[in-house]
Amino acid sequence: MSQTPKNIAIVGSGLVGSLLAIYLRPYGHRVTVFDRRPDIRTVEFSGRSINLAMSDRGWKALREVSLEKQIKEIAIPLNKRAMHVLGKPQYFQKYGKEGEAIWSISRGVLNRRMIDLAEEAGAEFKFNEKVWDVDLPTATLYTGESEKSEWKEYKFDIVFGCDGAFSRIRHKMQRRSRYNYSQHFLDVGYKELTIPPNKDGSHKLDKHSFHIWPRGKFMFIAMPNLDGSFTCTLFLPFEGEVSFEKITTKKEAKAFFTTYFPNVMQDIENLTKDFFNNPTSAMVTMKCYPWTYWDKVALVGDSAHAVVPFYGQGMNAGFEDIYTLNKIMKELGDDWENIFQTFQKQRKPNADAIAELSYRNFIEMSSKTADPSFLLQKKIEKWFAEKHPKLWEPTYSRVTFSDRAYAEALAIGDIQEEIMQEVMKMPGIEEDWRNKKVEDRILQLLEQKQQF
Amino acid sequence: MSQTPKNIAIVGSGLVGSLLAIYLRPYGHRVTVFDRRPDIRTVEFSGRSINLAMSDRGWKALREVSLEKQIKEIAIPLNKRAMHVLGKPQYFQKYGKEGEAIWSISRGVLNRRMIDLAEEAGAEFKFNEKVWDVDLPTATLYTGESEKSEWKEYKFDIVFGCDGAFSRIRHKMQRRSRYNYSQHFLDVGYKELTIPPNKDGSHKLDKHSFHIWPRGKFMFIAMPNLDGSFTCTLFLPFEGEVSFEKITTKKEAKAFFTTYFPNVMQDIENLTKDFFNNPTSAMVTMKCYPWTYWDKVALVGDSAHAVVPFYGQGMNAGFEDIYTLNKIMKELGDDWENIFQTFQKQRKPNADAIAELSYRNFIEMSSKTADPSFLLQKKIEKWFAEKHPKLWEPTYSRVTFSDRAYAEALAIGDIQEEIMQEVMKMPGIEEDWRNKKVEDRILQLLEQKQQF
Repeated sequence: MSQTPKNIAIVGSGLVGSLLAIYLRPYGHRVTVFDRRPDIRTVEFSGRSINLAMSDRGWKALREVSLEKQIKEIAIPLNKRAMHVLGKPQYFQKYGKEGEAIWSISRGVLNRRMIDLAEEAGAEFKFNEKVWDVDLPTATLYTGESEKSEWKEYKFDIVFGCDGAFSRIRHKMQRRSRYNYSQHFLDVGYKELTIPPNKDGSHKLDKHSFHIWPRGKFMFIAMPNLDGSFTCTLFLPFEGEVSFEKITTKKEAKAFFTTYFPNVMQDIENLTKDFFNNPTSAMVTMKCYPWTYWDKVALVGDSAHAVVPFYGQGMNAGFEDIYTLNKIMKELGDDWENIFQTFQKQRKPNADAIAELSYRNFIEMSSKTADPSFLLQKKIEKWFAEKHPKLWEPTYSRVTFSDRAYAEALAIGDIQEEIMQEVMKMPGIEEDWRNKKVEDRILQLLEQKQQF
Repeated sequence: MSQTPKNIAIVGSGLVGSLLAIYLRPYGHRVTVFDRRPDIRTVEFSGRSINLAMSDRGWKALREVSLEKQIKEIAIPLNKRAMHVLGKPQYFQKYGKEGEAIWSISRGVLNRRMIDLAEEAGAEFKFNEKVWDVDLPTATLYTGESEKSEWKEYKFDIVFGCDGAFSRIRHKMQRRSRYNYSQHFLDVGYKELTIPPNKDGSHKLDKHSFHIWPRGKFMFIAMPNLDGSFTCTLFLPFEGEVSFEKITTKKEAKAFFTTYFPNVMQDIENLTKDFFNNPTSAMVTMKCYPWTYWDKVALVGDSAHAVVPFYGQGMNAGFEDIYTLNKIMKELGDDWENIFQTFQKQRKPNADAIAELSYRNFIEMSSKTADPSFLLQKKIEKWFAEKHPKLWEPTYSRVTFSDRAYAEALAIGDIQEEIMQEVMKMPGIEEDWRNKKVEDRILQLLEQKQQF
């Protein structure tokens, strides 16, 4: 179905805001994108980012507007994890089946490209213009220098809030009665660091791997860039024995890297410099509902559902929002109230599911990786999944290499967990599990749960 | 330990704000109470309230400042529930042991008295003065006509936010990074209605009962006032088959009361009038953390932990906050940073527990009261508790008639629930349960859970 052209504002020129602009323009909608920050194409990137991992859901959304191919040119496929365990040589874990990969992409590089593409599609960008208030029933934006300064007024037909986890648009919705909202922060923060390329421009570590240095309560990761460098992220508790608050001098930072990450020692000067130059950031899970107001205002992406980054799905979920919204727009034409209602009802359970999955991955990484019973369970699952790939798809694959609903991935993952809890109760399981008895027990439990 | 007198602001002149002022004055602190609303003593009460049920925790906090006796004079003890089940004659359920009661008290009457008492104690009240902002590190308040008007500045040593579930003081704290916050609304709203006294001033229903008309998804309750009237509350879904949105005319309201509440028919004119005069209000569970900022700002009562009213503990929990805070002040003297840290660490788990208990009571009342298995379980519990009162104290008694920690009541209630889940699996339990086998099974499970 076609749509009557509308005058639409998008607040936020990040990845979700720019892609939404690209999706809206072919309908003939007039699109104005507001951002409180300067044009990211004119400034050096802030160094406040975890490199992105684009996976199937993200690519699907880009494919729909014929951008997959050109964005893949600025991305690097990673088909495996490279594990750097203390005292062990590096080893690899394949992510999925042959040909399955996640793609490393710099947030800054991608965002600049997306804004170019949105401009080419005919969207207008207003940078350095701070939105302070929105009148929801009339889709009117108020911008100005400060909260107490004179404001400029812009009237639209529809406003999209793509302004992130701390959305100003949502802020206004939150003041309505019966607005459900939660924000929950982790006690672990993160900091971006860089490993520069070799002198010949090549990568210092394997280029097609997602590098992980798991250390229990903290963790270091590295993802490759096109220029041979790696964007690294240090996840570390804010407070406590080994923590950001305990590393305040260059000496302490060097001791920290030397002790825990001996194989990045060659870059210690650079890592230490970055450690004190770059900000320490917090991670939040944000949930809210409703996401929409009448046929006037809708939240899309992080402004509706911010997740912690441990499943690499934040951007993918935001892009999938847009893909879903567009499908509904095609079905329902000009009935924007119905479009918004359908959108939020369809997406909310999936947003909650990926929030839960992302949080659980954090718990798993930070507290369970040292638990022998948990590690044994994972081994048994892997062994069974390899024997019966059609009966046991790992949750990671369902989230990363499919476009089936996040809520389904969570639900099936829960059933698998219940089954494994039973299996782990089998007498003698610690000593001997690669046998027919264990296999039959899992098959029997699967049948009971009606997963056939 | 004594304290050095400080210049203290309390934002909010509600029950918690006034009681806190009464507690602070004997230390010699200068106390100024701000409220955005007019003096409640000079205006008719808004009719936006559920009558309060003061129980042991509330009385204990009043006793500490020698107010128990005079507040009891404006309260009516209720030692039982009066159940009005459709098609059955009214019957009674004792709340607790002999002498145990909750006390019905009008929020308006109590609040006016508390402000009088706080003024007598030397607190200064500034009504009609709206606090718009607070500078946390300097405990400075900013007040004015509107958010964008000129503001007046007041500098204090300490600011207490007692400004309720939608606290302006907390609002500022929420903007800090790593602030955990959630608000969750029920789909059920409430409306206050009144049953006037008989012509001779006597009560139309039993005066010493908490009256309940349970109707599955909705419910009507009535609590006595000193003047012979009853303050009633209708709890009803906002939307759906039987809901506020479906009752829009006098005819519909009368049909609703006639169908579901035949024994209040005599007052139908009054109830219908109130139905359209009084606002429909929402109910929220609000959680947040931290509650304090340095030694400068602290949240107390609903601003720190708002709960749904189904356990009758909102005010009691707020008063218990003050009792606890005062105990810590006596121990720690002038070390306000330590006082605030100790206060929030001690109270937070208990606030979470009463939020959970209150929410569960709502679920229990709205969805489980029609479940035969749930009703049977409750009967068995009651039967066992009467046989073994020392081994099985109902959660309701632990919350209402003791001052032991809410978190303990929740934890012990969970253990009791686990035990009952096992008991309900006993073969034939539906047919025959008043027997030694069931009794022994519970005793055995209690022993397993080490509750002896």
